Formats: sequence, C-alpha cells, structure tokens
Amino acid sequence: MKKVAIVGTGHTPFTFATEKTSIELFSEAAMDAIAEANLKSKDIKALYLGNCLGDFSEGQAMIQSYIANDIGAFHIPATRFEGACASSSLAVRDAYIWIASGYYDVVIAGGVERAASIGTPLATRTFAMFTDSHYEYPAGLTFPAMFGMLAHLYSKRYNIPLEKLKEQMAMVSVQSHTYGLSNPKGQFHKEITVEDVLKGFMVTTPLQLLDCCPFTDGAAAVVLASEEKAKELTDKPVFISGIGQASSGKLSSQKDYLPRLRAREISVKQAYEMAGIGPEDIDVCELHDCFSIASLIAAESLGFFEFGTAGEAWEKGETMIGGKIPINISGGLKSKGHPIGATGASQVAEIYHQIRGECGERQVEGAKIGLTDTLGGDGVICNLIMQKGW
Amino acid sequence: MKKVAIVGTGHTPFTFATEKTSIELFSEAAMDAIAEANLKSKDIKALYLGNCLGDFSEGQAMIQSYIANDIGAFHIPATRFEGACASSSLAVRDAYIWIASGYYDVVIAGGVERAASIGTPLATRTFAMFTDSHYEYPAGLTFPAMFGMLAHLYSKRYNIPLEKLKEQMAMVSVQSHTYGLSNPKGQFHKEITVEDVLKGFMVTTPLQLLDCCPFTDGAAAVVLASEEKAKELTDKPVFISGIGQASSGKLSSQKDYLPRLRAREISVKQAYEMAGIGPEDIDVCELHDCFSIASLIAAESLGFFEFGTAGEAWEKGETMIGGKIPINISGGLKSKGHPIGATGASQVAEIYHQIRGECGERQVEGAKIGLTDTLGGDGVICNLIMQKGW
Repeated sequence: MKKVAIVGTGHTPFTFATEKTSIELFSEAAMDAIAEANLKSKDIKALYLGNCLGDFSEGQAMIQSYIANDIGAFHIPATRFEGACASSSLAVRDAYIWIASGYYDVVIAGGVERAASIGTPLATRTFAMFTDSHYEYPAGLTFPAMFGMLAHLYSKRYNIPLEKLKEQMAMVSVQSHTYGLSNPKGQFHKEITVEDVLKGFMVTTPLQLLDCCPFTDGAAAVVLASEEKAKELTDKPVFISGIGQASSGKLSSQKDYLPRLRAREISVKQAYEMAGIGPEDIDVCELHDCFSIASLIAAESLGFFEFGTAGEAWEKGETMIGGKIPINISGGLKSKGHPIGATGASQVAEIYHQIRGECGERQVEGAKIGLTDTLGGDGVICNLIMQKGW
Repeated sequence: MKKVAIVGTGHTPFTFATEKTSIELFSEAAMDAIAEANLKSKDIKALYLGNCLGDFSEGQAMIQSYIANDIGAFHIPATRFEGACASSSLAVRDAYIWIASGYYDVVIAGGVERAASIGTPLATRTFAMFTDSHYEYPAGLTFPAMFGMLAHLYSKRYNIPLEKLKEQMAMVSVQSHTYGLSNPKGQFHKEITVEDVLKGFMVTTPLQLLDCCPFTDGAAAVVLASEEKAKELTDKPVFISGIGQASSGKLSSQKDYLPRLRAREISVKQAYEMAGIGPEDIDVCELHDCFSIASLIAAESLGFFEFGTAGEAWEKGETMIGGKIPINISGGLKSKGHPIGATGASQVAEIYHQIRGECGERQVEGAKIGLTDTLGGDGVICNLIMQKGW
C-alpha cells in the first residue's frame, strides 16, 4: 500500500443554529480545504462524506452528490457514511484506503451536521436512534444516561468517591473551555470554573450540564493525497501513519467492565501496531469528550495514564500544553462543539495543524505525531487515526 | 492492486412487510453468505452495509455494529453507506477496494431495508428526501414524477408516440414478471400482460401502476475475498473486473437531454475501460428498473442498443434469455422487489450466480461476464460493477 498524506483542511465556524444548509456548510469547508491544498476543484477525484441527521434536520438525504456538484468537482463518485458521532472519521478512513490502494491520487473527506438547527428536542430524539433502539433506549439508556452509568462504574471500580470524581470531571470541562478561548472556529469562547460545573443542573447523575458537550452546526473537510502528489503540493505533508476501527454490539452486551470500551481498546491496538509506536510517542491528541467522563476513560484506554488515574492527570495539568500529553487543545467537543457528522474530520484537521505548527496560541511546540479518537454511539464504534509529520 | 473475488452470497426472500428487524434481516442474509463461502463468522474482517431508511422504519440508525455482533463477527470495523437506491452498491464498491488494496483478505458487504414495513405514506415521504429537497421535491418532482418526465422527453426526442412508448414500457414489466416466476426469492410470482399494465391506474403520466417497482423488505449480502483466499475456498471464484461510479447535481442541473443521465454515462465508461471490454462482451445484465422507462434509458446508456430503440428490443425479445443481452432475468426491481438499501447487493448476487451457472430455470447458458447498474436517487448517483468468471 502507498503512503497517504493530508495536504489541506477546511473548517466552518462551529456554531449554534445557522440558516445555512448542510450542502452550503460542507461546500464552504471543502472549498477552503481545496484552496489550502493549492488545488482546484477539478483535481478532486472522489468525495467521502459523514452525515447523520440530514434527513431529519432539513429533509435532505444523499447530500454528497449535490455537494460534489456544488464545489465544482463535477461527476466524481460521492459516498455518504453514517457511524453516529464517528461518521466523518469513517469517511476519512475510507478516503485513506482509496489513496493507499493507488486507485486515486487526490480525494476529499469530511462531514457536516446541523445538530443545533434541528432543535434540541428533535436532536435528542433522533440522536437516541444511535443507541440500541430495541432494548437500551426504551430502558432509558440515552447517551447521557449511558455515560452517567459509566461514571458510576468508574467511581466504584477505582474507589474514587463520586464527589471527588465530579471535581475531576469538572477539571476536564474547565481545561477544554480554557483552550477553547483560543480557537476562533469553536462554538464557545467562555472561561468556566470548577464551581460553575458543580453548580450546573443535573442532567443524569453524576453528569451536570457542563459535563456535557453541546449540539452544534458545522462542517470540516480534509484533502488526502498520495505521497507523490503531496510532495508536489507542500513541503510539510502530514502522513496518516496508523488507522484502527472496531465495533461492538450494544454496550450492555459487553460482558466485562463497561468503561473499558472493547471497540476502543481493539482499535487503539490496531492503530499503534500499524504505526509501530506506543502511547509514549504521541505528542498531541484529540479524543472523544462527548461527556467529561468520556475523556477520562478514553485517555486511559489510549494508554496515556494508568487506569483510574486520568482524573488526577487532568487536575495536575498533565493534559495541558507542556504536560505529559496535551489533550483536546482545540477545546474538544465540549467547547469547540460537536456537529455530529463533522466531529471526526474536525479532530483530524486540528492534529494536522498541530503537526505543521500552525495553531498559534494553542500550539503544542514540536508536535510531530498526533492521534484522533472518535466514538460512534455509546462506544459501539471507535475509530483511531494517527498522523505523523514529514 | 490485487484481484478481488466474490465467493458467496446470501439473500432473504424479498417480501411485503415483515416483522423482522433490519438487524435480523441482514444477519440472515449474511450468515447464508458466509456459509455459502465455506467460511466462519470469525473469518470476516470487516462489514460494509447499505441502508437508507432504518432510522425512519424502526428508529434505529447505525445498525452495522449491532449486525457485526449479531453474526458473530465480533468487533470488526463496520461501516454504513447511504446512496439512496445505490446504497449497497456503494458498500460493495468500498468492500472491493479494502480487498484490492491488500488491507483485508475477506470482508462482507450488502444492504438491508424495510421499505414495505415502513408503510407506503411514510415510505413515499421519506423516500422523497433522496431527491433534491430544496427545489425539485417542492416543485413536485418526486421519483415517479421525475421518471414520468423522462418518459415524455424520451418519447419526444425519438418521435415515439406516447401510446406506442407505453406499450413498449409495458413489455418491460411483462418480461420482468415472466422471469420473476422462477425467482423464489422475489416479491411477486405473478404473470402480467401488456393489457394489465395499460389498464393500471395512472401514477404520473405516462407511468401506470405496473410501470412502477414496489416497496419491499429484504436483505442481500456478498462475501468478497482476495484472489489467494478465493482459490482456497472455491473452484469457481467470480472476479470483480470493473467498477464505475459517478454523481451529478440535481437532475435539472444537467443541461443536456435529461434521460441520458450523465452520472450513468460516466460510470459506464469507467467500468468498461477498467475491464477492458465493451457492451458486446456482456452476457447478462441487471439494471436499475425502478420504473419501466428506467430500463429503456439504462439499456441504451449501457451501450446495448441504439438510442431510441430499446423499446423495440424489449418487444422483440432481445432482452430475454437467448436474445442479444438478457436483462433483469432475476425479475428486476419490478418483480423481484426493491428493498432500497439491499437492491444493489441483490443485483450483484444474481450476476454471481448467473456466471457460476446456478440460476436453474432462469440460467443464461454460458454467461461468463455480467454487470450490474444501480441508480441512486433520480440519477444523481450511478454505480456499475462488472463481474467475470474464473
């Protein structure tokens, strides 16, 4: 297989409800990505698009063909991927293999969602379709309930009193909002304190409002190219050095301790093996912080911290720039926002710019290897993408 | 790139409303495909699934992970594709590249839909989301309206009086129902006459009820393998010898004569070029007959007949077994049924069995090369997959 590089990204502002259509949003991100890659629309050979709720948010399915036309990449193959919050990670993974195989030399991948525009009640209802709708959802296991349950299990397993865990989780949100101040594309630009989190209304014990990421509108795109093509386009190509993806049945079918999501641990292993490295080699990471507890369990399964100690790590600043492993320096899903189908591509774009040293105030100095971790649903999909500098 | 073979298929009965869930339906097809390939579930490295309406038909999105678990292919990467009626063709195409690249040796692809269970009013409404929802659908351009318009344009372009064209179109449906009698997996087993078609109620001029395919529940799956693996499994591997896929903007943005769908003509060219053959080399074809007029325009763009003459060809029996090019010997979407997300994989499975000489009464003797043509939406996606025997 051939080496595959990322050569450009585009990213709309992540916002509350917008009046733009999904086609307009993604086209905006795509045109920026194509320009950043020093390419023209006609150079793009195929489009891989993540989108979850388009049919519900604006009554339009199959937007990929209309987008290809809208961006002037006429008649290219265009494919839509759905894997809940990991939809655009799946799209990027797939774009990767079309280049790695030698079939195409330049393609575009990404995702879009109008998860804020759809309105919270309908967003909540439709989003629940991404859990197991036959058993778990009717039993009350929506996403907040599921992650609340994981927090309780985590607390119990590691003997961390719930009040202490809540403080640790609050630190996750506080850090994300701190870095979110310096991400102009993010949804929130507002500092918060541990007290703000702990005073918030209870969503589902022990998760309070500021433990939860928002619904967001937005789009993100990345241009992928073969090594030969990438070298024509840039002196600083960033290569995809490892990929991993795994699934599981409904979370309650996982017989072992639930917070160590099997789909994640398997995909993590695949990605590290393919890249030939370990967690100690990662310079910067964007992980799936749909809820504050999700950050703790992700950071541990990714191998950055001993199990049961991630909360301490956040408290000590080990996840900040200058710490052991800078995590979610973009502001993460919590502060940057979570436009479901666009989230994975947004993470990939952030890591790309970190490796190229283009992140300004929030730059992790000398970052050369980074990874993204995206969950779909309550952990029934996990997708890892590892990037390495030139 | 490596050669990719199909080594097994599975196909539920295509039916009116079933009480089975989409997960149950696809799992049934998948287990049959795995068994037919002489494999075990644990041999499957990834799942590629087409599904359009799962969220609407049973409130369950992201069914792919649950299916992987259900069939005992625990923790494999599982990806859902949406490209309207071409959803599972996109899934098969994608499965192809993961094998061709050398990344996996055995994967499963296919699709499932409960388009009958959802009920006709909701199916009609949700299905309209696969047209352009911003301009075309509000203007009344649902799928029947769009294909009715194509029939009028076709009639005018080739000076075929509408009454004559209606008779030709009726012959398409009559032939499909004739062959449908010998497909035990099909939805209809009922002979019809030209008179039956012409007496049917008018859906949208000039298309009458029996010019239109039904809504259907069902699933189809195919197992794909590397050449090395295929040779271990069977003496009769069937190889994917060509693929093509293209998109377009909304149909009305196609400036030229609309029935010659640009997306189709481009993907046809790609597939023939890749396979190094022409239409005269095709022994058997399954094409996208969502409406009877769709068969005529497809057969012409695929290169089987001169433009404007496909109706005559059907009348003369040139599309029957023993004719110039046997088309839709499975019964096609019209008689076999059209479970939207499953249709493409079902077509691929039919061609596979034709090439292996396993189609019994409806066998095309000596078929060695076959192709499938699947449309997504009103032609904004077209997907071609060419198969060739060992």
